[in-house]
Amino acid sequence: MSAIEELVAELAKLPGIGRKTAQRLTFHLLKQPPEVAARLAQAIHRVRDQVIACGVCGNLSDDDPCAICRDPRRDATTLCVVEEPGDVGAIERAGQYRGHYHVLGGRLSPLEGVGPEALRVDALVARVSNGGGSVVREVIIATNPSMEGEVTATLLQQLLRPTGVRITRIARGLPVGGDLEYADGVTIAQSLLARREMDGD
Amino acid sequence: MSAIEELVAELAKLPGIGRKTAQRLTFHLLKQPPEVAARLAQAIHRVRDQVIACGVCGNLSDDDPCAICRDPRRDATTLCVVEEPGDVGAIERAGQYRGHYHVLGGRLSPLEGVGPEALRVDALVARVSNGGGSVVREVIIATNPSMEGEVTATLLQQLLRPTGVRITRIARGLPVGGDLEYADGVTIAQSLLARREMDGD
Repeated sequence: MSAIEELVAELAKLPGIGRKTAQRLTFHLLKQPPEVAARLAQAIHRVRDQVIACGVCGNLSDDDPCAICRDPRRDATTLCVVEEPGDVGAIERAGQYRGHYHVLGGRLSPLEGVGPEALRVDALVARVSNGGGSVVREVIIATNPSMEGEVTATLLQQLLRPTGVRITRIARGLPVGGDLEYADGVTIAQSLLARREMDGD
Repeated sequence: MSAIEELVAELAKLPGIGRKTAQRLTFHLLKQPPEVAARLAQAIHRVRDQVIACGVCGNLSDDDPCAICRDPRRDATTLCVVEEPGDVGAIERAGQYRGHYHVLGGRLSPLEGVGPEALRVDALVARVSNGGGSVVREVIIATNPSMEGEVTATLLQQLLRPTGVRITRIARGLPVGGDLEYADGVTIAQSLLARREMDGD
């Protein structure tokens, strides 16, 4: 396979990138000064080599613990539980939230065989209870407003109830079936402000 | 800048890729096995290091002359003149054409200061005339059906007329203002079959 065909094929494997887009990107890179392609390749290498999961919150980061977990100005009494690392970025960009995070690494999905054991659920419960010595007062469940995200939220609520922590759910300001990662900052900020208690089962 | 932010920034510099798409691609790469990102980075390096312009036709290739120019089964009596290397790929995928190519490296654009001297126009005339020893019988001008592409086609026709070669223009099966690189194969094949003589000015 020629170098051009190979790069087109590799780019076309990325989600949302078809063959024609891959070809367009390839010729774009060939038209730029060599540094452009070199910087892109290096950034890909770096992200693979340096990015690790934070041992505390599970977010992807260059450091462990991550910059958010280490930041003394952030409110450690509040945890925001999200499905994926990308959701942390979305909430951070909204600029509304100043607490800590807990990244589950997915959501419950019986169809795809994803059960609680595949998510960082035990770590969340341990973090919130911490043998009675936890500082966490509130857990904001910010899983996606999809069916699977709601099921995941309900499970978390049931597991966290014995700890006595306040459990809230972000408001459904997001369209049902939508994806938090792609929502705009205003909508996310609204849904954080309008969060409500989870008190039933 | 963190490794994630850096890759997002580099990806977002690519044409048609916004910040959110760049973030989605970055997290996609982080979810895949490390080989996926390594192969992509390597393909980018390879395309920069190995791809050169064919000395005969100007197409981008791993070899000089390129595979098309070297192929003895192709018809050397017909030259298809295109603006960009991506156009060669589009015509090849259409599967209709079996002749050779000549890549101009752009089109005339007074607004952008692109004159004939910035394109491989002299090389085309030399290739077609070749001191009277040329085998080229027909030149198909396949510049884009845009205003600049038409102006370029007219210039080529005027420059090539003294050589006595047959000069044709691909049919306007392509929508005016469109871009050959993104046309579908059927449309391209049609426009090649319906090519017409260029005989006046």
